Amino acid sequence: KKARLTPMTFSLLHSTDFADRYEKNIYPLLRAGYIVLADRYIYTALARDTVRGCDQSWVRNMYSYARKPDLVFYFRIPVEIAVTRIISGRPKLKHYEAGMDLGLSKDEYESYKIFQGRIVDEYESMVSDENFIVIDGTLDIEKQQNTVRRNVLRTLKLKNQIRGNIARSSQLETNTDE
Amino acid sequence: KKARLTPMTFSLLHSTDFADRYEKNIYPLLRAGYIVLADRYIYTALARDTVRGCDQSWVRNMYSYARKPDLVFYFRIPVEIAVTRIISGRPKLKHYEAGMDLGLSKDEYESYKIFQGRIVDEYESMVSDENFIVIDGTLDIEKQQNTVRRNVLRTLKLKNQIRGNIARSSQLETNTDE
Repeated sequence: KKARLTPMTFSLLHSTDFADRYEKNIYPLLRAGYIVLADRYIYTALARDTVRGCDQSWVRNMYSYARKPDLVFYFRIPVEIAVTRIISGRPKLKHYEAGMDLGLSKDEYESYKIFQGRIVDEYESMVSDENFIVIDGTLDIEKQQNTVRRNVLRTLKLKNQIRGNIARSSQLETNTDE
Repeated sequence: KKARLTPMTFSLLHSTDFADRYEKNIYPLLRAGYIVLADRYIYTALARDTVRGCDQSWVRNMYSYARKPDLVFYFRIPVEIAVTRIISGRPKLKHYEAGMDLGLSKDEYESYKIFQGRIVDEYESMVSDENFIVIDGTLDIEKQQNTVRRNVLRTLKLKNQIRGNIARSSQLETNTDE
């Protein structure tokens, strides 16, 4: 199978798709005060495109307009388990998802493991700088969900407090102005 | 007509197309020692996307991998003449080419004039920093072509001289090594 997309055009096409979703879905909702949940965000692109060989600061700059999330959950699991889960869902891996364009292995599952292993390394390198909340993805779903709920609740309370403070202080200013 | 592309997705899509051409056509030929002539290059994107409202440093970064040309010819003509020439070639302006997505005017020709006028301002601001060779696009084609030929010849001679010097100096080193 001939590689039609280079790492750079692959990265740019995904970036175009993301920008479209960001401007038409994510940003308008955030502006309107909604909570937006995203399954994959700019970190996916950063990790994936860097592993493909793109310059990380080049990719970062491309996504620089995207607002940093209030919370980032990183579900950490060994690549072997990821492969098993994916295969149980659908029998065939996708060409680029398996990193077949990188020539890591002629075998799709072998290639997937090497490729996703490198992506995991990239995610791991972001954990502390990007404040990922790491969740053990091998735990029971209920346990994982509890961690998610706890963190979301805490963040919502924090946000409401800040909003309350701003409201009170602006009320105070209004009173002083009178 | 509903705008399907935002300034950012418009910019990214064109950037993807450019990257594809650059990696598959321009770069391999340059590496092989060919002379590549490009009718429009990264400066077109810079001017056009900036006028559309994209952050210029964001656009610049996206094209940062592209090699700077040895020579850039900028054919300067008043927007009125540009419109006349375009219309004589084809009766209908393209939606984005006329900048209709920017809501500058309901009339396509009016919109084109305002839009291209702003693009011209952007080009003019690059003339000195990017070392554009400005050619008066209202002159006879023969005169314009003479200027192009003169500059190309001078650059080729310069390049050959440099190449000769490198060849001689490496020969010298080889001799000294003996």
